[in-house]
Amino acid sequence: MVDRKMDILIALKEAGKEPISGEEIGEKLGISRTMVWKYIKILEEDGYVIGSSPGSGYVLISAPDKLYPSEISIGLDTDIIGKDIHYFESVDSTNDMAKKMGFKAEEGTVVIAEMQESGRGRKGDRWVSPKGGIWLSVILKPGILPVHAPRLTLMAGVAVARVIRQFGVDASIKWPNDVVIDGKKVCGILTEMDAEVDHIGFVVIGIGINANVSVDELPEELRGGCTSLSSINGENINRAAFVQDLLRSLEAEYLRFKLEGFSTILKDWISLSDTIGRQVEVITPQKIIAGKATGVTAEGALIVETSEGMQEVMAGRCIYK
Amino acid sequence: MVDRKMDILIALKEAGKEPISGEEIGEKLGISRTMVWKYIKILEEDGYVIGSSPGSGYVLISAPDKLYPSEISIGLDTDIIGKDIHYFESVDSTNDMAKKMGFKAEEGTVVIAEMQESGRGRKGDRWVSPKGGIWLSVILKPGILPVHAPRLTLMAGVAVARVIRQFGVDASIKWPNDVVIDGKKVCGILTEMDAEVDHIGFVVIGIGINANVSVDELPEELRGGCTSLSSINGENINRAAFVQDLLRSLEAEYLRFKLEGFSTILKDWISLSDTIGRQVEVITPQKIIAGKATGVTAEGALIVETSEGMQEVMAGRCIYK
Repeated sequence: MVDRKMDILIALKEAGKEPISGEEIGEKLGISRTMVWKYIKILEEDGYVIGSSPGSGYVLISAPDKLYPSEISIGLDTDIIGKDIHYFESVDSTNDMAKKMGFKAEEGTVVIAEMQESGRGRKGDRWVSPKGGIWLSVILKPGILPVHAPRLTLMAGVAVARVIRQFGVDASIKWPNDVVIDGKKVCGILTEMDAEVDHIGFVVIGIGINANVSVDELPEELRGGCTSLSSINGENINRAAFVQDLLRSLEAEYLRFKLEGFSTILKDWISLSDTIGRQVEVITPQKIIAGKATGVTAEGALIVETSEGMQEVMAGRCIYK
Repeated sequence: MVDRKMDILIALKEAGKEPISGEEIGEKLGISRTMVWKYIKILEEDGYVIGSSPGSGYVLISAPDKLYPSEISIGLDTDIIGKDIHYFESVDSTNDMAKKMGFKAEEGTVVIAEMQESGRGRKGDRWVSPKGGIWLSVILKPGILPVHAPRLTLMAGVAVARVIRQFGVDASIKWPNDVVIDGKKVCGILTEMDAEVDHIGFVVIGIGINANVSVDELPEELRGGCTSLSSINGENINRAAFVQDLLRSLEAEYLRFKLEGFSTILKDWISLSDTIGRQVEVITPQKIIAGKATGVTAEGALIVETSEGMQEVMAGRCIYK
């Protein structure tokens, strides 16, 4: 698909601080100068600030703080994840949107939104998703059995924790699906699947990151347990660049998952986790399992050393004691 | 929701062969005689044949051979399955339609269609679904782990085999998801789920039955392996009555599944199956497992005694040798 707007943006970005004339851009793309001018206006409407002077040409002065596909795609060197990006200013839930697209979408398709009206955490829990955060879902078609789907949640946890660490912040993974900084939640991961009983059609990995979110914006009951990248960093981060790094990190882990198998990812998960070795209480619908977390199984279950022996917990809310 | 058409149909059915006047029906339902007449016309458009004579009233002479919700609901005494029935003359796939409704639908909601344009078997295989068949999907919210979802396929197999046996035909279950008569497929079951990794949102059980289908209508390559209820019976069956029995049977097995657990269902599955005890070849994407089928695990895997020992096969196409 020809995306003129994106092509013109690429030309402006390549030109950098040097003005580039409408004529030159037009020649490059095989369109008229007037057409170039029309697209420049559209880019300005999108929030790009573009300098222009009659004699010299156009200069990209600044990009808007938006997670536009163009901002993420240009310079993204992945082969699978993020080749197709669907952007929404606002959406009910990126996971729901991705699930609607799932069957027809190419593997690696990303749905991203500036905000979610009804963001969801596990088991339908509300997930507050204001502007400034990173709310995205990735569609994967991993060809694994449904029983192995939890591995993808662990894989995504490794990818997110790694990219935050690259960013210079000491993030850890809290079983089963949170990434935390100093014990406070900065990211939640929600893996959902559309599956036959022995065959996954597609998996949607939802990743919600409190990026440029003020903790004060969150509902009072969440403030104590949450943090954000901007509050740790002292100022807003470049979300588009962060998303690029995140998609690269996800692709690296996913390729490792496919080529080397899950065991190396599990090892990394354990070394990135702050759950293992802790006294925990895991609250399940049936009971509370209390003891020392000693490991995670290949199926994603937490191994807890209780007073009654070792127990494996597949699902539950984990509290550190 | 007030469904006047259904109410009038009920009044006609209750009256049986005795004519009932428009005035009497109108009084019963609190509507005018003219309104009754209008609904009678709508019923006639739907294919109901209704006798009427000025002095005496209306008599229901025959119902159309359609799986209208009214034909299924009236007299259906289930508590969960079939309380809400969505009918389509034609649909891409009842499973796809049910999956779209899944989250908001009540448990037990049924989607039924006279024909499917793109009926699906396992792993996206085509499932030919001409008029005269029974193509329906049931939405369940069983509160079980995704790993236990295969149990619902086995449960549905038991329910279908039972209802065909009630009908007087010796049906058996062929692992994993077919119901056969004399080794020929009469029904396929496709269970799909929308799930988090440790929590099923909903399950859709698709049941396709060659009811009043001439085997000659099927593509040539399927004719040898398929049969239909009408060809066994020698004449068309009453599909609406059969669907009522099927929904009752599903409800009975589902309640047993919930109240007594899976083990009694598994026992019945094994006694209704014609796979156990046979020499089989199970074709999986990785390999062919050949040997004697000796049982099924609680997770739905076929146990095969091969020359290299016992093997459990989770998924595959099973051929009798």
